Amino acid sequence: MVEGNKLWGGRFTGAVDPIMEKFNASIHYDKRMWKADIEGSMAYVKALEKANLVTADEREDIYEGLEKVRHEWEAGTFELRPGDEDIHTANERRLKEIIGATGGKLHTGRSRNDQVATDMRLWFKDAAKVLCDHISDLIRVMVTRAEQEIDVLMPGYTHLQRAQPIRWSHWVLSYAAMLQRDVERLEQIKDRANTLVLGSGALAGNPFNIDREFLRQELHFDKISSNSLDAVSDRDFVVEFLFWASLLGVHLSRWAEDLILYTSKEFGFVTLSDAYCTGSSLMPQKKNSDSLELIRGRAGRLYGNCTAFTMAMKGIPSTYNKDLQEDKEAMFDSFDTLNAILQVATGVLSTLKIHPDKMKGALSPDMLATDIAYYLVRKGLPFREAHGMAGLCVALAEKQSIPVSQLSHKDFQSVSSKFEDDVVDVWDYDNSVEQYAAQGGTAKESVRTQISSLRAWLELKCDSGVITRK
Amino acid sequence: MVEGNKLWGGRFTGAVDPIMEKFNASIHYDKRMWKADIEGSMAYVKALEKANLVTADEREDIYEGLEKVRHEWEAGTFELRPGDEDIHTANERRLKEIIGATGGKLHTGRSRNDQVATDMRLWFKDAAKVLCDHISDLIRVMVTRAEQEIDVLMPGYTHLQRAQPIRWSHWVLSYAAMLQRDVERLEQIKDRANTLVLGSGALAGNPFNIDREFLRQELHFDKISSNSLDAVSDRDFVVEFLFWASLLGVHLSRWAEDLILYTSKEFGFVTLSDAYCTGSSLMPQKKNSDSLELIRGRAGRLYGNCTAFTMAMKGIPSTYNKDLQEDKEAMFDSFDTLNAILQVATGVLSTLKIHPDKMKGALSPDMLATDIAYYLVRKGLPFREAHGMAGLCVALAEKQSIPVSQLSHKDFQSVSSKFEDDVVDVWDYDNSVEQYAAQGGTAKESVRTQISSLRAWLELKCDSGVITRK
Amino acid sequence: MVEGNKLWGGRFTGAVDPIMEKFNASIHYDKRMWKADIEGSMAYVKALEKANLVTADEREDIYEGLEKVRHEWEAGTFELRPGDEDIHTANERRLKEIIGATGGKLHTGRSRNDQVATDMRLWFKDAAKVLCDHISDLIRVMVTRAEQEIDVLMPGYTHLQRAQPIRWSHWVLSYAAMLQRDVERLEQIKDRANTLVLGSGALAGNPFNIDREFLRQELHFDKISSNSLDAVSDRDFVVEFLFWASLLGVHLSRWAEDLILYTSKEFGFVTLSDAYCTGSSLMPQKKNSDSLELIRGRAGRLYGNCTAFTMAMKGIPSTYNKDLQEDKEAMFDSFDTLNAILQVATGVLSTLKIHPDKMKGALSPDMLATDIAYYLVRKGLPFREAHGMAGLCVALAEKQSIPVSQLSHKDFQSVSSKFEDDVVDVWDYDNSVEQYAAQGGTAKESVRTQISSLRAWLELKCDSGVITRK
Amino acid sequence: MVEGNKLWGGRFTGAVDPIMEKFNASIHYDKRMWKADIEGSMAYVKALEKANLVTADEREDIYEGLEKVRHEWEAGTFELRPGDEDIHTANERRLKEIIGATGGKLHTGRSRNDQVATDMRLWFKDAAKVLCDHISDLIRVMVTRAEQEIDVLMPGYTHLQRAQPIRWSHWVLSYAAMLQRDVERLEQIKDRANTLVLGSGALAGNPFNIDREFLRQELHFDKISSNSLDAVSDRDFVVEFLFWASLLGVHLSRWAEDLILYTSKEFGFVTLSDAYCTGSSLMPQKKNSDSLELIRGRAGRLYGNCTAFTMAMKGIPSTYNKDLQEDKEAMFDSFDTLNAILQVATGVLSTLKIHPDKMKGALSPDMLATDIAYYLVRKGLPFREAHGMAGLCVALAEKQSIPVSQLSHKDFQSVSSKFEDDVVDVWDYDNSVEQYAAQGGTAKESVRTQISSLRAWLELKCDSGVITRK
Repeated sequence: MVEGNKLWGGRFTGAVDPIMEKFNASIHYDKRMWKADIEGSMAYVKALEKANLVTADEREDIYEGLEKVRHEWEAGTFELRPGDEDIHTANERRLKEIIGATGGKLHTGRSRNDQVATDMRLWFKDAAKVLCDHISDLIRVMVTRAEQEIDVLMPGYTHLQRAQPIRWSHWVLSYAAMLQRDVERLEQIKDRANTLVLGSGALAGNPFNIDREFLRQELHFDKISSNSLDAVSDRDFVVEFLFWASLLGVHLSRWAEDLILYTSKEFGFVTLSDAYCTGSSLMPQKKNSDSLELIRGRAGRLYGNCTAFTMAMKGIPSTYNKDLQEDKEAMFDSFDTLNAILQVATGVLSTLKIHPDKMKGALSPDMLATDIAYYLVRKGLPFREAHGMAGLCVALAEKQSIPVSQLSHKDFQSVSSKFEDDVVDVWDYDNSVEQYAAQGGTAKESVRTQISSLRAWLELKCDSGVITRK
Repeated sequence: MVEGNKLWGGRFTGAVDPIMEKFNASIHYDKRMWKADIEGSMAYVKALEKANLVTADEREDIYEGLEKVRHEWEAGTFELRPGDEDIHTANERRLKEIIGATGGKLHTGRSRNDQVATDMRLWFKDAAKVLCDHISDLIRVMVTRAEQEIDVLMPGYTHLQRAQPIRWSHWVLSYAAMLQRDVERLEQIKDRANTLVLGSGALAGNPFNIDREFLRQELHFDKISSNSLDAVSDRDFVVEFLFWASLLGVHLSRWAEDLILYTSKEFGFVTLSDAYCTGSSLMPQKKNSDSLELIRGRAGRLYGNCTAFTMAMKGIPSTYNKDLQEDKEAMFDSFDTLNAILQVATGVLSTLKIHPDKMKGALSPDMLATDIAYYLVRKGLPFREAHGMAGLCVALAEKQSIPVSQLSHKDFQSVSSKFEDDVVDVWDYDNSVEQYAAQGGTAKESVRTQISSLRAWLELKCDSGVITRK
Repeated sequence: MVEGNKLWGGRFTGAVDPIMEKFNASIHYDKRMWKADIEGSMAYVKALEKANLVTADEREDIYEGLEKVRHEWEAGTFELRPGDEDIHTANERRLKEIIGATGGKLHTGRSRNDQVATDMRLWFKDAAKVLCDHISDLIRVMVTRAEQEIDVLMPGYTHLQRAQPIRWSHWVLSYAAMLQRDVERLEQIKDRANTLVLGSGALAGNPFNIDREFLRQELHFDKISSNSLDAVSDRDFVVEFLFWASLLGVHLSRWAEDLILYTSKEFGFVTLSDAYCTGSSLMPQKKNSDSLELIRGRAGRLYGNCTAFTMAMKGIPSTYNKDLQEDKEAMFDSFDTLNAILQVATGVLSTLKIHPDKMKGALSPDMLATDIAYYLVRKGLPFREAHGMAGLCVALAEKQSIPVSQLSHKDFQSVSSKFEDDVVDVWDYDNSVEQYAAQGGTAKESVRTQISSLRAWLELKCDSGVITRK
Repeated sequence: MVEGNKLWGGRFTGAVDPIMEKFNASIHYDKRMWKADIEGSMAYVKALEKANLVTADEREDIYEGLEKVRHEWEAGTFELRPGDEDIHTANERRLKEIIGATGGKLHTGRSRNDQVATDMRLWFKDAAKVLCDHISDLIRVMVTRAEQEIDVLMPGYTHLQRAQPIRWSHWVLSYAAMLQRDVERLEQIKDRANTLVLGSGALAGNPFNIDREFLRQELHFDKISSNSLDAVSDRDFVVEFLFWASLLGVHLSRWAEDLILYTSKEFGFVTLSDAYCTGSSLMPQKKNSDSLELIRGRAGRLYGNCTAFTMAMKGIPSTYNKDLQEDKEAMFDSFDTLNAILQVATGVLSTLKIHPDKMKGALSPDMLATDIAYYLVRKGLPFREAHGMAGLCVALAEKQSIPVSQLSHKDFQSVSSKFEDDVVDVWDYDNSVEQYAAQGGTAKESVRTQISSLRAWLELKCDSGVITRK
């Protein structure tokens, strides 16, 4: 019987089905956690020394052996062998090749169950930081554009129908508000993931009274898990991350949808840089917003990953079951997907050209129908009545096939005697926008408040280490 | 042309398709937000007075009218009318019937877009509190059982194979650890939902400089939304809640799966109270754990709700689109589902009987194979080597068809000369369990620490108002 | 101990938790299968007579009793009682009230497991017919419009960028092609559901040698299930239906998205009837395509139902488990949702107005860039080269800010000497469209072929009874 | 400006973002369709010759060039270049390198839109065949085991509670029934996919009157798509396949769940071959059913793929949008996952050992409670009454802590005077099982019918080419 260097050693008597072997192996994707795996082992061997399970010399040997393994990974010279079914097996196999039998002491009281959970948490903390940085880059571009293009007006839409004039910058910043929440959420997930699970063993705990507080400090975790059964199979942070990625994906899908519309000939508000478009293999005039369509479409993929693993978790018994192995590919794919999406989105936004004339040209007097109602409210009419009258004005103009702004004084009077000559002031789009001065509105002052508040928020996040200062 | 009391008044000229009317209406489910809708209006009319858009008398009239509407809902006498397509229309229609035209001033500068978003957030804050209370009830039962039954041992499983002996209480508390995280998550979602969006209008903001800080205080929100375009269509808290419900559902599906196994004849660890079982229409001896199977199955439903609304949001343009109307049924159904599941789960756990003899009877010496390895580790062998030898012992016993504990001294010696007479001490299950004394392990002291820590946590949550003191 | 009229009779000794009772009950939704339940029982009692388990008189009594129960349902006088947890219990309880103890013979050898599966299949066969009829109504409207408006040209889009001129009718019929597939799929699911499962008992089969072929004929099923364990828990047809509904929902979401775009001010190709729009509570000029947005959004709900039940099924043990009870609400909700969506869609399409001038106005010479390439191909150039040259023409025109059709002869010659005077013929949109005469293309003849083929298909489906002749 | 060999040629003026380039490229996964892509092109060039768009010599050149490209792929010598964003670009690039400018004629009137859709359909037809073969292998193993082990009895479960004795073979075959439906469904999907879409161009059709009937024959399709707009974006077969894979995955997840239970110590019915288990890195005695857990867990992954692409499709405008690029990775991953799962499942089932003694040992007299009721029914009691009495017997035995079969004659009489001495015949499990002789039941004859019917079905599928004869 030959079982190669599989961790469970000398008991199995059957041969292995090569398809099963491949089906079971995770090395081709979990190897990207090599660094976390080594860090975890380095901390663990120190703890073993504290618990008198290895001597200072043995700790030294193992530590140096792990350093060498790390260097091989860094240098790209680490060679996988047929029996290396996962990163833990591979690293331990290599360690033993380098330092000999002493390497066999490293796994004392540890199980792959608490080991892999530790690796994933270490990996995830780094990954979260990367994504926070990308989001902050995107927010920065939003803030910069909003400030520079604060005077540009465009139609605001609800139900994809022109509703009220707004500032382009107000639209830009509406997505910054979503992204802020996304960062906040990711921080909270990271906080929850920031829990030491090493020292939980296979399920029952660690039998050698390993110093978990020491491990926590060594590995820079915030908290220590309270129950070993839970700890070895707690993948909440993975599921949460997958869903978090989906919600961010949904936000960006809406952003992409808006921009796909704005880049269409019919809207014409925006032109993407060629770098983010592709042409047609058949139609020479085409310039397609592939970048945006891919961003929109991959919201589905992100949620697919979330579904895949949530469904895998549903109804399985407690503690570790192999079903949980589905956690990693989903987590890595969602990370990779967002890693690309966020950078592409930032590229798109930082290079697109806006056409303020087209935006302004799309404003029309009927978008000021609410302002007519407000005009009448200011003359003392209850809003409902005013709203009805404004509707009559719009209908009257439609009947005459003219813009509502060109209704005659007589027409207006026919609707309500409250209309006076000053109704002409209603038709100024800049005035209209400046009405919305209450907090969060589209008036210039309110947009400025948003900008400075976002700047302060970015600064705060830099100071607290959530994102990187640029 | 008659359009009934639809809010948009006098412009449409076509008739309405009755199927479309029903398709479009939300009143049959959104009426459960009647209280939140009235509270929102009460605050808004005060703000209108502050902004000089209604007089003190008008405010008084509207306020009293709203009180009457509220009383009708409370008394169950509020009558819906054919044109009442949603709760906002219904309440405003009724208000106008009671106080006349002044009622038409209430909606000044407000849109159904910011109104419905406000109602949902008010409703959700209450709903979250209800669910937190149910979860804390379940945790309390867990803590009580764990304490009373702390001495009971059972097999711990991984991969549904007997792994190592653990305490029953340790299993019980492993789910408390998950539920603690669920409470923490819900609090965070509630914090995010705790944002005033009223004053955002249809999309562009409020044009009458309404005092949003005043509204915030009146409606007990923590924060004020920063961007009106985002505010009217921000349903993040709904999507987050739907996913939160799914993750809680997954936790409970695993708990239910464990108990379904434990109540089977084959395991026999646990008997459910008849109150939570049903019989068979055909097989008189059957006693089925329907309660647990429904809990397990409805994890699917909760995630279905999450999928439904997440997919509805994907790729729609920004601000309000009618697609968002799908938010409410999903939110209500997930709340109702969990409201039932949590209470049923608490009932199940508080009434089930455990069979400690069956649990103990399921422990077998081969579950102590790791302890054999630990024995050798304590004699100075590297773990890997010890692990291999323990495996050989297990294989040897299997070959002889005897429990590993009954191997002769000679047998043990044939595997390793390190085995001495004291190997017999390994076969004590209580000793084995007590080894796991590191934080989070299954030793008695560690379980006690979990209990006291959960008690303190419950106390803290009571003090901070997250859950209700019982 | 009081257990009401629960089917499993005299064994339980505990009281029932009212929340559990409600949690467990399905009567509030499964009562809509009352008719199928009675039909199933009627056939079953006949089979019992054939098997000598009831006498002719008893059969008569039971049959007449069931008739009375049916009349009560039809008349709306059937009264539910507290213990009626599901439709089977309710009908049997009522039967026994009407005819006495003989009613207790009806369930001989039958289980609720095979009974409910039978009811669902009977119900589903009717439901599928209803949906097929609605789909065929929608296809009929498409065919009619396509024929009447066959001459109208509009821009065809890919990536939401104007691509090539097409016929409006070609766009209309592209959805008929999808719906045809939907009908085909539903027929196949119905064929699979058309299997008799009655006579499978609880799980092991029927012990009285009931004549299942007789039952099959009585209940108009096509086939008989081959394995009782599978039969009692085979919900494939439900899952298939839920997914089918989702895919139809996706098709209609794309149709809705197209029309939402086309009804926007920016496109302006189409105006919806007021019957399918709603206005704004704030903005008097707004006319929102709520019908279409709801159709688009509910694609999410349909897939949510599919997810809910698929996830509930995943990983449960074989045969019946209570998790399966989640099948019915999902199935009914998807049916109700599509029942509304399809009728609303038909209403929308049959009443909308198109604006051929706006459509034609959106055609521009750059959409004929491919035709320039084709021109050069016809002059003997390899397509790739021709495509590149057409691209240069477009770029040249862009640089001069003129339509490509207004490039001078010299300009064209600067790109390729193959350009001759006849290039002017390229700029005729009708000519362009007529090029696409290969099967499935947008040329008039090809569209006519689609129309007549769809007509023949509808006729065939009528003849085969899949849809109803109108 | 350098754009490499991108298909759209000479118009773009911006540089390309390398992240975007990678984000946009599909070559790393769509290259597996190289064969289909070449076949499609070979047929197309013949059609071009028929339409006089290439000469016989040119056709010959292109054909031979394509042969060379094919050989490079087969030999593994095809080299990808930086600009090869997808398989179509790569193959065309290489063709032109080999044969020069004539290669540029291949794409005449074709678009990547109809090209990629053609490739996918060709690929899918082969893939479906592979999966059908794997399923039939699994069914064959089931049939063989069922026949050989037909005499083995075991407990049948509902709600995971022992319900009635059944044959092990009946359990085995219950999954064959599901797999038969899976094959039927896949055939139907394949039929729908078996439609020629080539000749639809980018969206409007083919402008050179290409002979699509000729193309259909060349590429062995059954039907020709009727509408070009639909044809270029019809991914129904992909979505259907993804869902089909999910449903098959759900079936296998239930099968895996059953076997995971049966391999537990508590059930002990079955032992897996070592080849399909793994051990523990910590616990030497463990033998975990990893193969089955992975099968169970990957049901989630399969549905995740379905969700990903269904959600990507939802709400996008008609015809081709880049979102559709998400079709391929999902399709390939679901194929690969099932390709492994099915072979592993076949391996597991063909090598596992059953323990008939353990199965029989798990039968207990209370499982015959229904038979007591049937006994009374045969003595003339209405079933409901008999069911109640059988329940009383069970309760009586439970009170005395004896099996129901050991109740005294007096005890039975105390429940009903109908009980006579022949009640002892009830306690024979073989008799019990043989009662279920109605079609589909667990009696031996009925199981034999299932076996022969499955054999005939396999034969039929071989003859019709759906599966391969072994």
